[in-house]
Amino acid sequence: MSKNLTSRAEDYSKWYNELVVKADLAENSAVRGCMVIKPYGYAIWEKMQAELDKMFKETGHQNAYFPLFVPKSLFEAEEKNAEGFAKECAVVTHYRLQNDPDNPGKLRVDPEAKLEEELVVRPTSEAIIWSTYKNWIQSYRDLPILINQWANVVRWEMRTRLFLRTAEFLWQEGHTAHATKAEAIAEAEQMNNVYAEFAESFMAIPVIQGVKTESERFAGAVETYCIEALMQDGKALQAGTSHFLGQNFAKAFDVKFTNNEGKLDYVWATSWGVSTRLMGALIMTHSDDNGLVLPPNLAPIQVVIVPIYKNDEQLETISEVANTIKNELKALGVSCKFDNRTTHRPGAKFAQHELQGVPLRIAIGPKDLENKTVELARRDTLTKEIVDLNKVATIAKGLMTEIQESLFKKALDFRNTHITEVNNFEEFKKVLETKTGFISAHWDGTSETEQKIKELTKATIRCIPLNGEKETGSCVFTGNPSSGRVLFAKAY
Amino acid sequence: MSKNLTSRAEDYSKWYNELVVKADLAENSAVRGCMVIKPYGYAIWEKMQAELDKMFKETGHQNAYFPLFVPKSLFEAEEKNAEGFAKECAVVTHYRLQNDPDNPGKLRVDPEAKLEEELVVRPTSEAIIWSTYKNWIQSYRDLPILINQWANVVRWEMRTRLFLRTAEFLWQEGHTAHATKAEAIAEAEQMNNVYAEFAESFMAIPVIQGVKTESERFAGAVETYCIEALMQDGKALQAGTSHFLGQNFAKAFDVKFTNNEGKLDYVWATSWGVSTRLMGALIMTHSDDNGLVLPPNLAPIQVVIVPIYKNDEQLETISEVANTIKNELKALGVSCKFDNRTTHRPGAKFAQHELQGVPLRIAIGPKDLENKTVELARRDTLTKEIVDLNKVATIAKGLMTEIQESLFKKALDFRNTHITEVNNFEEFKKVLETKTGFISAHWDGTSETEQKIKELTKATIRCIPLNGEKETGSCVFTGNPSSGRVLFAKAY
Ligand SMILES: [Zn+2]
Ligand SMILES: [Zn+2]
Repeated sequence: MSKNLTSRAEDYSKWYNELVVKADLAENSAVRGCMVIKPYGYAIWEKMQAELDKMFKETGHQNAYFPLFVPKSLFEAEEKNAEGFAKECAVVTHYRLQNDPDNPGKLRVDPEAKLEEELVVRPTSEAIIWSTYKNWIQSYRDLPILINQWANVVRWEMRTRLFLRTAEFLWQEGHTAHATKAEAIAEAEQMNNVYAEFAESFMAIPVIQGVKTESERFAGAVETYCIEALMQDGKALQAGTSHFLGQNFAKAFDVKFTNNEGKLDYVWATSWGVSTRLMGALIMTHSDDNGLVLPPNLAPIQVVIVPIYKNDEQLETISEVANTIKNELKALGVSCKFDNRTTHRPGAKFAQHELQGVPLRIAIGPKDLENKTVELARRDTLTKEIVDLNKVATIAKGLMTEIQESLFKKALDFRNTHITEVNNFEEFKKVLETKTGFISAHWDGTSETEQKIKELTKATIRCIPLNGEKETGSCVFTGNPSSGRVLFAKAY
Repeated sequence: MSKNLTSRAEDYSKWYNELVVKADLAENSAVRGCMVIKPYGYAIWEKMQAELDKMFKETGHQNAYFPLFVPKSLFEAEEKNAEGFAKECAVVTHYRLQNDPDNPGKLRVDPEAKLEEELVVRPTSEAIIWSTYKNWIQSYRDLPILINQWANVVRWEMRTRLFLRTAEFLWQEGHTAHATKAEAIAEAEQMNNVYAEFAESFMAIPVIQGVKTESERFAGAVETYCIEALMQDGKALQAGTSHFLGQNFAKAFDVKFTNNEGKLDYVWATSWGVSTRLMGALIMTHSDDNGLVLPPNLAPIQVVIVPIYKNDEQLETISEVANTIKNELKALGVSCKFDNRTTHRPGAKFAQHELQGVPLRIAIGPKDLENKTVELARRDTLTKEIVDLNKVATIAKGLMTEIQESLFKKALDFRNTHITEVNNFEEFKKVLETKTGFISAHWDGTSETEQKIKELTKATIRCIPLNGEKETGSCVFTGNPSSGRVLFAKAY
């Protein structure tokens, strides 16, 4: 496996695209904008799914499954939501192909198999789910409904990039129904906290929690909570969103309930989701010019053992030692692969595991056998050390925690040094172009100003931070009064 | 929760439909032929997925994900496969909706957003996957490829039934590529064995392993292996299939490799799948007129504890005992729910858990507290017994194994007494109408005879059993020579 990876400094975007393919994470498919997620990439996604699923269940949610298709009449019911997604949705119009009389051996759409009502391939499932909840909810006793769905969705994006923006992607979407506004808001906030906790503890990505401005809000939401991360090129990435939907969908689908005072009211809603886009965030936050760097908590293989040998006898002895270490690691809850392929030389194996981001490599050669030692190599720091054979499992176990924390700390330092407070528009533009990162600036609260800044600089308001101090000031663009600083950035 | 379940004797089909809905497993959606899988039903499917996924990984497979859409030109490449699915596929023709100028507030398909090439929503993924494998395979060193995908698929069935036949369903599809014919056949057989093992050990459903006749084979397969189960109404249900695809897809997509002798050859293929249809098999095999009966190995809740009390003080004391039992069960690996809802009376709870098939119910009342006993009720036999409080967890743990085995044995006895050897067509028709079940009969091996028997009786050849003794004889219909008995049945 030859690397030849473009460096980040040379071309960050090219580096990313190459890395995703060379590390065997995903590739483009024969279908415009749709990706193939390869086994190694999917194994990382599976680990993410498992952890998130556990966190959803611990917060009282259950999984269910709703149809892939949304009939057009349901799709258009919530006006803003429909408006937001109509321009980029795949539409099923027919249910049969037939032999093409003009092209023997080819098929064509059967004109007689036209659907009476077109079906939209779900870009998100509020419409189909709220048309279902209508039948499930009569009284406050039927509430709350706390459901999550793992599914594929389709948004016909024109410019796509592996994991970051694809026409089809995998995600989870939570859809909850509540008797009170306060409970729904608390749910939306809780799930944004869950996302932040997951991003920081498992992905080792520091995130800023905030709410979106009106123009960046989910189509149909009253409030969109989000977690925002910063990539190594100084661009922001929205890693997860949680929406308080108010009564918008309940009104669109006429979902009323009898409250505990016997009065009819519309149901309150939330929805929240993260997607395979997280893979893009994971890759861009930690990886380097040698390839992928994975936090141990999400690495499909945490430790790899590579034997270095000249003959079969040596391989046999090394194998015994390797299997002992592997078993010791397993007992300590650390996953380990003994890479005993005879088709590849150690150098090629080193390069592959480095490219694929295995957190820790153990190399064992004949000299190690004599000295009862092994060589440890950390992927994150690229440092090596010789350690005692009988201590290697314990040391490796400890390093899993250390690497996880070190990656988070490194990302946090980078993020923190790339939040810059600016107080005038000249500085704003300069920081954006030179230092990059988040810009903390006063804003007058209007969509007009937001739009103008975007047109002039390509920077958008990533969020109004939830934990920001409420310092008043003057808008960095108009000079009009501002009730607090918001975070601007160029974004993925 | 009121039952009012139609009895099986009255109308088996109606009983099934009602049970699926009343036990909160699934329901029909606003989209023709598509179902909503409700949380309780989905929890059972999740348990199935977890066990199957483990078995796939233990046999060396990895998960991956391929696009939902198949461009028409790829779809039509393998002629037989295309022919088999063309008549029932959902076709995406447009990628945008726009405001309907004639109907304010409504949307219509944007005629200018017509796709150059139509996209078929995958009814199965051989085409998209083999067009991808083409780029992954050059040499025998790239083989085997052992990949599985968990996904949704769409087949535009005209007559649908919850779980058994739906326009969209969830499934897993394995797609493997091999250097030799023998290896591919061994893989197809191995996965059929995995399905049989899963059906018998987890679903408690005895299955017959066999191969399909040409007319019942998967479109594009050289050989289709299958597991066939028998439902309580004497109809057969195909529970899983594993296909040896020969070089059909490699030829259709031009996937060649250099073998270890340096020669170019087409790659050998298999595919294999089970779907949410298994839910239908599970429900129909074990359930009774009181509702669902679940084997403990797949029950989302294995034991439920229901408190019987007259006042808060009693509930408090019972709660302490219940939580102790729950913790003891947890330590023994048995899942338990303490149903302490104050909104429902014990009778309503009993009825609900019976309807939903919880394998074991523990009831605790004031008298039990005095006597240090509890009441155990088995869902499968509907028998009750009083047991010592301090032994209940151990007894419950033992009952999980006993109920699992008992359900399998009951289903096996039923199945075995419903395989009837017949030697003439009058008997064939009589057994089919009166006793029902599998009919073991000689067949002359021609599709014509198979077709005629189907037209006359609605019975099809479910499989040519793999472990059948090779007894020669005369075809039950034509009298022509037969090389062995095959199994006929009416089928789902
Ligand atoms: Zn910098
Ligand atoms: Zn009978």
